[in-house]
Amino acid sequence: MHDFVYYTPTRVFFGKNAEENIGRELESFGATKVLVHFGGGSARRSGLLDKVEKQLQDAGLPYAELGGVEPNPKIGKVREGIDFCKKEGVDFILAVGGGSVLDSSKAIALGLEQGGDPWEMFMTGKIPDKRIPIGAVITISAAGSEMSNSCVISNPDEHLKRSLNSDINRPQVAFMNPENTFTVSPYQTACGVVDIMMHTLERYFCDSPTAEPTDSIAEAVLTSTIDAGRRAMADPEDYDARATLMWCSSLSHNNLTGVGRNFWFVCHKLEHDISGWFDNVAHGAGLAVVFPAWAKYEYKNDPKRFARFARKVWGVVNDDDEAAALEGIEKTKSFFRELGMPVTMAELGVTPDWYEKIASYTTDFDKKTIVSYTPLNTERIMEIYRLAE
Amino acid sequence: MHDFVYYTPTRVFFGKNAEENIGRELESFGATKVLVHFGGGSARRSGLLDKVEKQLQDAGLPYAELGGVEPNPKIGKVREGIDFCKKEGVDFILAVGGGSVLDSSKAIALGLEQGGDPWEMFMTGKIPDKRIPIGAVITISAAGSEMSNSCVISNPDEHLKRSLNSDINRPQVAFMNPENTFTVSPYQTACGVVDIMMHTLERYFCDSPTAEPTDSIAEAVLTSTIDAGRRAMADPEDYDARATLMWCSSLSHNNLTGVGRNFWFVCHKLEHDISGWFDNVAHGAGLAVVFPAWAKYEYKNDPKRFARFARKVWGVVNDDDEAAALEGIEKTKSFFRELGMPVTMAELGVTPDWYEKIASYTTDFDKKTIVSYTPLNTERIMEIYRLAE
Repeated sequence: MHDFVYYTPTRVFFGKNAEENIGRELESFGATKVLVHFGGGSARRSGLLDKVEKQLQDAGLPYAELGGVEPNPKIGKVREGIDFCKKEGVDFILAVGGGSVLDSSKAIALGLEQGGDPWEMFMTGKIPDKRIPIGAVITISAAGSEMSNSCVISNPDEHLKRSLNSDINRPQVAFMNPENTFTVSPYQTACGVVDIMMHTLERYFCDSPTAEPTDSIAEAVLTSTIDAGRRAMADPEDYDARATLMWCSSLSHNNLTGVGRNFWFVCHKLEHDISGWFDNVAHGAGLAVVFPAWAKYEYKNDPKRFARFARKVWGVVNDDDEAAALEGIEKTKSFFRELGMPVTMAELGVTPDWYEKIASYTTDFDKKTIVSYTPLNTERIMEIYRLAE
Repeated sequence: MHDFVYYTPTRVFFGKNAEENIGRELESFGATKVLVHFGGGSARRSGLLDKVEKQLQDAGLPYAELGGVEPNPKIGKVREGIDFCKKEGVDFILAVGGGSVLDSSKAIALGLEQGGDPWEMFMTGKIPDKRIPIGAVITISAAGSEMSNSCVISNPDEHLKRSLNSDINRPQVAFMNPENTFTVSPYQTACGVVDIMMHTLERYFCDSPTAEPTDSIAEAVLTSTIDAGRRAMADPEDYDARATLMWCSSLSHNNLTGVGRNFWFVCHKLEHDISGWFDNVAHGAGLAVVFPAWAKYEYKNDPKRFARFARKVWGVVNDDDEAAALEGIEKTKSFFRELGMPVTMAELGVTPDWYEKIASYTTDFDKKTIVSYTPLNTERIMEIYRLAE
């Protein structure tokens, strides 16, 4: 087992009345002016924003609203948020939404402290060592940003999507009510299931030695997510299935499923540049295409682990490791298809003439390789794309 | 899934050089005078205390030493610690040891703030809402106190062992080096394995509906602990086995394996009064006797869950739930025996003439029953003891 640091300070209020804790919790952080940060109009239409704001009103906490965060959240909105918070004197950010709103909130909080142009932080990795506190009211089970150290922002002008990973990004508190995800569409539910699985799979597949209980816990999170994903697709108001997805989304990305092992996040890196060029590609959908192709490209370099995945997660019965591994990859791909996810580049709208362009961005025009079982240069990434045809 | 709050703020430094973070971390808490709190002489003999104190010296952090904490830590030592800390002006407690030293540290930190006689806190449950920070250098994998909300103290004059459970008890930071457990004796290693398993089993067996991923994660922690337990008994310097036990001990008691379900901790309650009267009974040894007996007394009230445990954790193949359940209980008892643990009351030195006396203390002379599948009064607890003959 490799050495590790484990730090998950987020206080999670989970359940049917999670929002009722908002006022008291924000007061405990000494909040005097709250930014209620959200995305499109669904949080308003569902009545959730009203419920959240009623909590703030009851606690006598002044707040200002900023909506309009888009999927694959943009640096422009972050800049706008920073200016808005300065003007309003905000000292607590309450994100109401999913990973996009939360990542935008994380970037705003860091940017307020940083002072300069916030995109600089994403290009240099240099970030401040303190920031105002963040809370999260989760409306979709997917990114796990509510407990993660991750913050991913897109810069459409430069066709770049970059992440900042630091413990400072972990939110202080999260209010997680599975009922708030009942209205998530089947397509977005499916994208979320893929995203949750991938946060665990990206940690599960790497060349570190087996580490227990980490590996067995990863398998527990995966089987729970697959089962609950099927149930949530069949009945969007299945509370128990929605609750399982919501908690798995947090555990998949707070690093419980990765401690004691290294990890690469190679599929995320490949996907980020696809959705960097094709903004209509949802993160989960891009991952559903990339993972099975990447796995087919790499499984012979770690047949024992791919076989273990097949046997423990998919119940594959096959004593031959390579054959079992392939069965497991096929079962994963079939499951993604069953969820209604794309599994080919064509289904994402990415034609072969784009391959070299996108892959070149991922490798910075072959100035670097992406760490995987095989170091990935532009040509190898293109081979992976071709396995997704 | 039941509503829950999840809060595990402890920053864990895990691995071969975990202690090297002590100086920097304690400085980050603004510590100016550290209590180095420990048990017997083993921490000194092993060189660990010297290593810890070197870290404090290098960081220029003044410290004072207080050793002598015994297993089943006593309220008298807590009182002594409070007086010592007041005299020395301590503002950070660094526990070097296992659950006993850590629980003593937790009680001292609370008592410093409380002001009165600290046993009052354990009798009334009334505790302060702040305390000085606590760090833990773990030397045995067992109690999981380094991430838990629990603090258990004995009062030998009154033959009582009582616990205080509150988030305020969670340590701020833990330094966990599996190598520091290489010298733990086979007997204490075995006690630890039982204790780790029981912290998960006490959460696993209750009348709540199934909750995923909690239940599957509990099974992952149990299978990992059983496998690593066997390996650590065979080779005390098996780093990977020791690391698995150490991390499982934290995860078993930080509530990861219980969220979304109720739990009773009924075996702990029964065991506490056994070791309250028989101070030579190690906590893990008492639990090894109580659990199989309690399980046999109760399994017919929840055959599906006991059968799931048998199948998932012990690989029992039997379609009949009650028969599978019994097989699982027997396999658990055999494993405890394989570890060299006692599994009968006689092996603990508890003769039948003691049964009524001990059980009466647990039920406060039948003024209350202990919550279990069957509400347990004195007579029923005595029946459980008899199942452990």
